[in-house]
Amino acid sequence: MNLILVARDELDPDGQARLTDRRATHIRTVLQGVVGQALRIGLMDGPLGTGRITDLDAAGVTLACTFEAEAPPPPRIDLLLALPRPKVMKRLWPALSALGVGRILISNAAKVERNYFDSHVLDPAFYEPRLREGLEQAGDPHQPRVSVHKQLKILVEDELDTLVPDGPRWLAHPTASQRGFNLTPPARKERLLLAVGPEGGWTDYEIDLLRAHRFIPFTAGTRIWRTEWAVLMLLALAQERVEATAHR
Amino acid sequence: MNLILVARDELDPDGQARLTDRRATHIRTVLQGVVGQALRIGLMDGPLGTGRITDLDAAGVTLACTFEAEAPPPPRIDLLLALPRPKVMKRLWPALSALGVGRILISNAAKVERNYFDSHVLDPAFYEPRLREGLEQAGDPHQPRVSVHKQLKILVEDELDTLVPDGPRWLAHPTASQRGFNLTPPARKERLLLAVGPEGGWTDYEIDLLRAHRFIPFTAGTRIWRTEWAVLMLLALAQERVEATAHR
Repeated sequence: MNLILVARDELDPDGQARLTDRRATHIRTVLQGVVGQALRIGLMDGPLGTGRITDLDAAGVTLACTFEAEAPPPPRIDLLLALPRPKVMKRLWPALSALGVGRILISNAAKVERNYFDSHVLDPAFYEPRLREGLEQAGDPHQPRVSVHKQLKILVEDELDTLVPDGPRWLAHPTASQRGFNLTPPARKERLLLAVGPEGGWTDYEIDLLRAHRFIPFTAGTRIWRTEWAVLMLLALAQERVEATAHR
Repeated sequence: MNLILVARDELDPDGQARLTDRRATHIRTVLQGVVGQALRIGLMDGPLGTGRITDLDAAGVTLACTFEAEAPPPPRIDLLLALPRPKVMKRLWPALSALGVGRILISNAAKVERNYFDSHVLDPAFYEPRLREGLEQAGDPHQPRVSVHKQLKILVEDELDTLVPDGPRWLAHPTASQRGFNLTPPARKERLLLAVGPEGGWTDYEIDLLRAHRFIPFTAGTRIWRTEWAVLMLLALAQERVEATAHR
């Protein structure tokens, strides 16, 4: 836990937060906190700051919180992900928030098994703590917004322009003719939407549908990666392209 | 298993290989192989090819193997990795070979616990099957060469120029001033050596030592990644830079 995350409704009017869950345990046992000590904290979806320990005992920890004036910039990447096997999705949650994704659109696709959508891994009670774990790891206060879409066509045709209006859309597709590093990165303030297909790939119909809605196919090489690695590495590559524009 | 790997000494003079291990089980049960069927195979550290099933029963599978004239190009990245916790190293082995690394130099560093070197994860009997698993996954016949170095100084000062003579050397260091995408990628035929430090980072002494031997520090951002993700993503970024030069 490289960042203690505090939610807005945990702050009393004086800016004090009383923690009694695993954050308190972490402060007591791993950080070996003492009264007066200052800890790096983050306000969920807000700025970073400092939490000074004003009280600490077996029941919990109280922090006097002060925050910086401005929140760090939010992630500039959104992800459209064909739902992988629940076992893989489970491991991906903390990785996605740790990498930094603004919006996670979980979608169906022809090669996704329908019963994956019944899995508990799509239950907010399951994934929210895991997303939070990734944020605590990466030191980022921005919670990804998650939505689940059981029909790719409806998502792409009717909803996507509202959910992710601007910026380039890239479609990872192993047999695409264009390499990722040849794509034009997003402009300075634009976001990038990355689509990653199911283990068996997108169908031709799906590729056509996505292309018709501004997605540009690209490949990151001919190696066959496990879904889990593929998602992380495609995100890392996309992020690097986005960051490169921020620094130009 | 996207590629059945065959070792040179498994081939009889007529180019037949008799498989009786998990490859045979995979061909029978997962691929549902039948006599006459052609499978995609690879000669370990050699070319790809085709294996036609000439015999198949509960005891094993015989393949008549033919290979392409030329082996696919070997990976152009080498990795100097400060030994992570054995649990992490265990998971990294198949990922490293799947991503494609020519040489894996496992090293000590100030912030590596000495007893990690006693772990069975550094035993070739442990890691070789795991590296092979990654190659079968990625469809690559090139086995990474692994060496273990208990003293970083001796490795860097006395051995590195022999093991990895040419090409740029990049040093992942979160607080470096230079972003990875600003580094000059290796020339067309050059290899790239990537150094990734321990969970707690390199010491100043180590940074100085590495810099004195041509390593250029770079950062991939301020997020704090788990070692496992960090290694994979840094490799993916380095690979993308190397590939970009191959396509220019």
